[in-house]
Amino acid sequence: MKALLLIAHGSRKASSNEEVEVLAQSLSSHNHDFDIISHGFLELTTPKVSDAIEALVAKGATDITLLPYFLAAGVHVSEDLPLLMANAKKQHEGIQFKLLKHLGAAEQMADWILGYADNGRNVR
Amino acid sequence: MKALLLIAHGSRKASSNEEVEVLAQSLSSHNHDFDIISHGFLELTTPKVSDAIEALVAKGATDITLLPYFLAAGVHVSEDLPLLMANAKKQHEGIQFKLLKHLGAAEQMADWILGYADNGRNVR
Repeated sequence: MKALLLIAHGSRKASSNEEVEVLAQSLSSHNHDFDIISHGFLELTTPKVSDAIEALVAKGATDITLLPYFLAAGVHVSEDLPLLMANAKKQHEGIQFKLLKHLGAAEQMADWILGYADNGRNVR
Repeated sequence: MKALLLIAHGSRKASSNEEVEVLAQSLSSHNHDFDIISHGFLELTTPKVSDAIEALVAKGATDITLLPYFLAAGVHVSEDLPLLMANAKKQHEGIQFKLLKHLGAAEQMADWILGYADNGRNVR
């Protein structure tokens, strides 16, 4: 059973955290190959990533893809997340974990940005 | 003359700032409708956004699209950037400015994320 976990930093600003929650819900409603999609935060708010992973395992996930919803590879991406995955592997033996590169490292980013910039509807 | 300015937060970590610089260069090498593409930072490093705007105007830009390279709408996105654009308009009369929504607000984000998550090459 395949799960996708969107991992965001977490903010003191409730509306920022809600953006992530809404996005995770929106992901679920799109076409995809995952059986469950959820989200977790590193800091400042909940659900914490470790709790989100536990919830996915409790729901039967056996293959969990962690997607860091970050544009830059700061300490969280380069150090905290690999450690977090190593701990998750220890705690949940038999579950497959896969840590994707942070979204900002996507090869498609330049295309995404240019498509976005050309679309007149994106103006504030 | 159309310009695109990618605006990032800026980091204490040089490699994070370089990611933005490399991305801005990569944008330039793709197919697009802009005559110039550059980048600027809000904090912690240079080029500052105001200096980047000045440089674009000096190069002949008359129509500048500001693209906030942010996933969440924190204070920088919701307050600082509109103020920054208002100041730029005052300083550069006759130049058209357009402030896009932050990248995280892109309608396409869910599709981007799912396409990214399905691609096995994106694993760390």
